[in-house]
Amino acid sequence: MLVVMEAGAAPEQIEAVVRHIEKMGLKAHPIPGAHRTAIGITGHQRGKDPGIVETFPGVKEVIQVSQAYKLVSREAKPDDTIVSVGGVDVGGNGIIVVGGPCAVESLDQSRTIAEQIKLGGGQLFRGGAYKPRTSPYSFQGLGEPGLEILARVREEFDLPIVTEAIDETSLKLIEQYADCIQIGARNMQNFSLLKVAGKSRKPVLLKRGMSATLEELLLSAEYIMSEGNYNVMLCERGVRTFADHTRNTLDLSIVPAIKRITHLPILVDPSHGTGKRNKVLPMSRAAIAVGADGVLVEVHHKPEEALSDGPQAISPEVFEQLVREVDAIARVLGRTLQPALAAS
Amino acid sequence: MLVVMEAGAAPEQIEAVVRHIEKMGLKAHPIPGAHRTAIGITGHQRGKDPGIVETFPGVKEVIQVSQAYKLVSREAKPDDTIVSVGGVDVGGNGIIVVGGPCAVESLDQSRTIAEQIKLGGGQLFRGGAYKPRTSPYSFQGLGEPGLEILARVREEFDLPIVTEAIDETSLKLIEQYADCIQIGARNMQNFSLLKVAGKSRKPVLLKRGMSATLEELLLSAEYIMSEGNYNVMLCERGVRTFADHTRNTLDLSIVPAIKRITHLPILVDPSHGTGKRNKVLPMSRAAIAVGADGVLVEVHHKPEEALSDGPQAISPEVFEQLVREVDAIARVLGRTLQPALAAS
Amino acid sequence: MLVVMEAGAAPEQIEAVVRHIEKMGLKAHPIPGAHRTAIGITGHQRGKDPGIVETFPGVKEVIQVSQAYKLVSREAKPDDTIVSVGGVDVGGNGIIVVGGPCAVESLDQSRTIAEQIKLGGGQLFRGGAYKPRTSPYSFQGLGEPGLEILARVREEFDLPIVTEAIDETSLKLIEQYADCIQIGARNMQNFSLLKVAGKSRKPVLLKRGMSATLEELLLSAEYIMSEGNYNVMLCERGVRTFADHTRNTLDLSIVPAIKRITHLPILVDPSHGTGKRNKVLPMSRAAIAVGADGVLVEVHHKPEEALSDGPQAISPEVFEQLVREVDAIARVLGRTLQPALAAS
Amino acid sequence: MLVVMEAGAAPEQIEAVVRHIEKMGLKAHPIPGAHRTAIGITGHQRGKDPGIVETFPGVKEVIQVSQAYKLVSREAKPDDTIVSVGGVDVGGNGIIVVGGPCAVESLDQSRTIAEQIKLGGGQLFRGGAYKPRTSPYSFQGLGEPGLEILARVREEFDLPIVTEAIDETSLKLIEQYADCIQIGARNMQNFSLLKVAGKSRKPVLLKRGMSATLEELLLSAEYIMSEGNYNVMLCERGVRTFADHTRNTLDLSIVPAIKRITHLPILVDPSHGTGKRNKVLPMSRAAIAVGADGVLVEVHHKPEEALSDGPQAISPEVFEQLVREVDAIARVLGRTLQPALAAS
Repeated sequence: MLVVMEAGAAPEQIEAVVRHIEKMGLKAHPIPGAHRTAIGITGHQRGKDPGIVETFPGVKEVIQVSQAYKLVSREAKPDDTIVSVGGVDVGGNGIIVVGGPCAVESLDQSRTIAEQIKLGGGQLFRGGAYKPRTSPYSFQGLGEPGLEILARVREEFDLPIVTEAIDETSLKLIEQYADCIQIGARNMQNFSLLKVAGKSRKPVLLKRGMSATLEELLLSAEYIMSEGNYNVMLCERGVRTFADHTRNTLDLSIVPAIKRITHLPILVDPSHGTGKRNKVLPMSRAAIAVGADGVLVEVHHKPEEALSDGPQAISPEVFEQLVREVDAIARVLGRTLQPALAAS
Repeated sequence: MLVVMEAGAAPEQIEAVVRHIEKMGLKAHPIPGAHRTAIGITGHQRGKDPGIVETFPGVKEVIQVSQAYKLVSREAKPDDTIVSVGGVDVGGNGIIVVGGPCAVESLDQSRTIAEQIKLGGGQLFRGGAYKPRTSPYSFQGLGEPGLEILARVREEFDLPIVTEAIDETSLKLIEQYADCIQIGARNMQNFSLLKVAGKSRKPVLLKRGMSATLEELLLSAEYIMSEGNYNVMLCERGVRTFADHTRNTLDLSIVPAIKRITHLPILVDPSHGTGKRNKVLPMSRAAIAVGADGVLVEVHHKPEEALSDGPQAISPEVFEQLVREVDAIARVLGRTLQPALAAS
Repeated sequence: MLVVMEAGAAPEQIEAVVRHIEKMGLKAHPIPGAHRTAIGITGHQRGKDPGIVETFPGVKEVIQVSQAYKLVSREAKPDDTIVSVGGVDVGGNGIIVVGGPCAVESLDQSRTIAEQIKLGGGQLFRGGAYKPRTSPYSFQGLGEPGLEILARVREEFDLPIVTEAIDETSLKLIEQYADCIQIGARNMQNFSLLKVAGKSRKPVLLKRGMSATLEELLLSAEYIMSEGNYNVMLCERGVRTFADHTRNTLDLSIVPAIKRITHLPILVDPSHGTGKRNKVLPMSRAAIAVGADGVLVEVHHKPEEALSDGPQAISPEVFEQLVREVDAIARVLGRTLQPALAAS
Repeated sequence: MLVVMEAGAAPEQIEAVVRHIEKMGLKAHPIPGAHRTAIGITGHQRGKDPGIVETFPGVKEVIQVSQAYKLVSREAKPDDTIVSVGGVDVGGNGIIVVGGPCAVESLDQSRTIAEQIKLGGGQLFRGGAYKPRTSPYSFQGLGEPGLEILARVREEFDLPIVTEAIDETSLKLIEQYADCIQIGARNMQNFSLLKVAGKSRKPVLLKRGMSATLEELLLSAEYIMSEGNYNVMLCERGVRTFADHTRNTLDLSIVPAIKRITHLPILVDPSHGTGKRNKVLPMSRAAIAVGADGVLVEVHHKPEEALSDGPQAISPEVFEQLVREVDAIARVLGRTLQPALAAS
C-alpha cells in the first residue's frame, strides 16, 4: 500500500500518518519527492485496514498494491492446472468444445442435440435444468427431471455433463447427477453458494459476473479453493458496456491476463457473450486464437422453438463447422482439439 | 414487439415472418414504409418467444416493446406504496435517514453508534451481521451473535433494524431478529433468495445490482412480490462505470424514472454509491433533492478502527448535519423528515 | 510512481530496475516487504517515461502516483475562481441558471425564448449556431446568421450569450459575437481547438466528454489555461454507461470531487445529461444540492417543433419553477441565486 | 419509428398522437394490442422529428427503427470495398499488418523500425508526427519535420505511410506527404475535421471513439463519404469500460457486426486496444480469427526509450512472429496475407 501526501502537506501531517501506521503494527517508509512525499507501507495487515489514513489531513490518496488472492495465483502454483471433467481434461495443451441447449426441455430434445454434439466433435454436453431467469414469469427449467435427462444423455453418448446450480439444493442434486457444477454470472458473488461448491468434490465452472473485474473473478475462485476444491475452471461470458450491437461485450483480452496471473483453465462462452447467433462462430475462432482452453456454445436443432435464448443458439451444422475451425486455429498455436471420450 | 425487415426484403420473406408469428397464435400487423416494412406483433406470448424471427431471412432487427413486470408497475397500482418498517413509514410524503456501521462489531460499538443515530435524528438502524466480502479472507460478519446485538439495540433505542441476508439460512434468522431484510447488490439476481424473501412477512430492501438496468431491478422486485410479499423498497447504490473518482457512479436519475414507473419506495445509499466519506453528505442532499424517499448512510464513531469499509463511514457529527440538511431540502419539495419512533 | 516487484523477484531483477531508473536521472527507493519489494520513484520525469520498467523481468506492476495537471489544481490556487461572463459572475457564492434552445432557429424563436428566460430568472442565454450532429443529414445550425441573432438577443434582454464552437473558424466568430465559448463533449479532447480557445480572451465553458475521467477533463482545462486563458468553467453533462433509462448517466459525484481538486467553477447540464424532459427539474435540484455553481437547461416554447433535441427541452413554465426551486435549495447551503443583469 | 402508448391510454390520446404525426406529413399506423396500443410511423422525416410525441399524454415510449446512415450501408453497396493505400489493397480477401512507432522521433529511429517492419512482412508503415496527448505537457510530435521523415522512409523501404491528422492544418500537410490520413479516436466526432477529410482524395482510416456505438462510428464514416471520399477504412481500438486489466476493452465482436452492415474494411488496433505489450500478439491473432481485414501494431526497437506509449510497443522480433501467426490464422479462413510492395 502506498500513501500519497498532498504537495503542501506539513511535516506533522506526514508524521501523524507514519505514527498511525506503526501503531497498527505495520512499517512505514516515507519517500520524500520533489513535489510531495509518498509513504510505502509493508507488513501483514490482518484485520485492520491502513486505508483509513486516506481521511487524515494532508493525505491525497491511498493506493493498493498487493492482491488478496493466494491459491489461484501462479505465485502459489506455477504450472497450469488440468481439470478432469468426467474423464475429459480441461486446460493443458488440448482445447475443448462444450455444446448443448440453453435449457433441457425433454429427453427427445436433449438426445437429438447430444447426438449432434458427439458427431460434431464436442467433448462435453451442457444443458440447464435450473435456469436463472430475469423475469419470474419466464421458464425456470425442469429441475430434477432435467438432471435425470442429462444423466441418461451422458450414459448414451459418453458425454460428461456440465449444468448450472442456482442454490444449495440444486447444487447438491447436481453433484449426484452431473460431472461439473456451473456457477453462473449472476451468482459469481453469491459467496454462500461458492462456499458450498468449495466443499464439493465435483469440478466447478465459474463464470465471470457481468461487471466483475479480473480480481473479483479470481477472488470468487479463491472462495471455492479456500474450502478445499481445487478443480476450478474460469469462464469469460461478456461484460456489460454501453455497446449495443451485442448483448454483452466479450472481453477476450482477459484470457491472456488470466493465463499470466493464474494457473486455472479459462473457457469462453460466445453465445451469452454476444447474444447473437451470427457472432458465435467468429468469436469462437477468436477465443481459441487468443489462447482460451475451450469454448461453450449453445446448440439447438430447432432454435425457433427453443424455450429460452433461441436467437443465440447455433444449428448442429454450424457446430460441426465451428469444431473444425477452432481445431485448425488451435493447431496454429501448437495445440489440438482434445479427443472426445470413446464410446464405453 | 416489432420486426423490422431489411430494405430489400422480398414479399415472400415478409410473408414467411407473418406466417410464423400467426402459427405461434399471435397477431402480425405489417406496416409497409417508404424504404422497408415493419411488422407489429400483438397478443399473449406465453411460453414461446417471437424474437426467434430475428434469424429469418430478410429480417433486420426485432425490437421489444412491452415490459415483463406487472405487480411493481404503476399500471397495476397507481398510488405510492408505503412500507412500515417496525412502525416507521417508508414512502409517502415523509423522508427517512437510515444509519449505522457497515458491520456489527460488538455490543459496545453498536450501542455507541445507535445512540448517535437516535440523537442525530435517524429513524432506522442498519448494521451487517452477515457481510458479503469480495475476498474469503476478509471479515465475514459476526453472524447470529450480531443479530442478537441488533435486537438489543432496537429495544434500547427504539430503532427498527435493517440487516442483510446472504442466503436462506441467514434470511430465516433475520426474519426473527430484525424488522427489514436487506438483499444486497451482489444478490439482486440470486433468484432463489428472492423467492425465499417473497415468502417472508418482513419488508424487503432490495439494492440495485452493480450493473443492473432499471428493468432488471424491477423484475427482481417482481420476483419477491409474485411470491406474496408486497412490502418491497428499492435502493440505488451506484453502478459500475469507467469513472474512477468514486468507487461507483451513483445514478440519481433512476429515482425519477422509478417514481414514474413503479409505486414502490426508493432509497439511495451514497456511502456504497461513492465509497468516499467526503461525498456522502453532498450526495445525500442530492438524493433527497431528486425525490428519493430516504438515504442509507454508514456511520462509525471511530472509522479508523472499523473492521470494514472505514473510509466511507461518516462521523456522528456529520450524520447530525446530514439529517438537518436533508430535512431542509425535503421541505423545499413539500416533504418532511419522518418522525422517529418515540421511546417506548 | 511506484514499481511493484513479483513475489519471487530475484535481487538482480530488483537491482536492474533501480539501475535503469537512476540512469534516467531519477531516484529509486526500494521498499522491501514481507512478500515482495516495491520501489518508489521520485524526481522530475521530463521527457522519459519510467513506466517502461513494467516490461522488465520480475516486475509485476507500475502504479502512477502524481497528476500531470498544475494550473487547474487547488495546490496552485487555493481560492475559488470566479469567472465573469458578460458581467455575470460564475463560481463563488452565487449560483446561476443558464437557459435557451438547443439550436437557434430564427430571430422570433430566440427572442420568444430569451424573454421567458429573463422573466423566469435566468442569468445567461445559451443557444447553438453551430450544432455538432451525429448524422451528416441532421440540421447543422444556422452558422454566422445564428450568431447575429444571439447578439441581438443579448442587446434586447441583457442576457450574456454562451454558444458552442466546433472548429477554429466558428470559435473566431463566436469570440466577436458572444460572451462565452462553449467546447462541447465531443471536442473535449480536440486539443487543437483547446489551444485556440486558450488564446482567446473570452471565457470558456468546457464540457466533460462522454467517457472522460476527471483527470482527463482537468487536463483538457489545463490545455486552455496553459495557453494563457484562465477563465475556464467545467460542465458535467452525463457519461456513457450500460444504463438505458436515460440517454446518459449524469455523474453528480464529480461535483464535490472537482470542488476538492480544482478552483474552477463547475456547472451541470441535466438536459443532455438525461435526454428526458421529465428528469431535468429533479436533476437540476440535485445538481445544486450537491454543490454545483449552476445548471444549463434547454428551454423551448414549442418543443414539438424544435429542430433538434425537442424531447429534452422544458417549457418556459417549468423553467420558472426550476429557478424557484434551485434558489430555495441553494439557500439551504447558504448560497443564493446570482442576480440577473439589470436592463441597460 | 414506433410509438408505444401506456396501458391505460385514452382513445383521444391515441388520436392526438396520430393527428400530430399526420400533421408532420408522415403516416401513422395504430396497432391495437391486448394491453396497449402501438403506433407505427412511416414516411420521410426530413427536418422534423416525430420523437417529440414522446412528451404527449398517454405515450409510454418512442422507439427508433431506421438507421440514418446510407452510403456506408451494404444496402447501398453490397460488395466489399477495397481501398488502395499507396498501392496496397485493404479489404477483400487479403489481410494486412500495419506497423510502426507510436511517434516519429528521428530519421534514424524511423528507418531502423521501418526496415524491421519491411523485413518482418508488414505492408504499411504508421508513425505519428502529430500526437494528440491527454496532457499539454507531454511530447506533441515533431510536426512537419516528422512528415518529411515519413516520406523518406516510404521512398527507401517502399512502405506506404499512414499518419494521424489532428486538425485541418495537419490534414492538408499529411495529404501531401502520406498515403493515408488517420482520424484518431478522440476526433471521431470532430465533424469539421471529418468534412475536411471527406474532401481529400487520400484514403482515410477512421478509428472508433472510446465510447462510440457502432451506429455513431458508421455515421462518422458517412460524414466523410457524404463529402465525396469513398475510401474509408474503419478501425476498432478498444472502448472504455470498468475493466482494469487492460487500458481499454477491445470489442472484437464489432468486426462481424460491421461486416454484416457495411461494405467498408475494418482493421483492429490491439496496441491501443489493450495498452499492454503482452496482449498485442494474442489479440492480433484473435482479430484475424474473427474476420478483421488487418491489424495495426506499435513496434519499437528500444521501447524503454520511446517518447510515448513505450509499454505497449512490441519488439521487431515479436512483430515478425505476429506476421507469421496472423498469416497462418488467415489461411484457416481461406484468406492470405497481402503481399508487400516490391522494392521499386
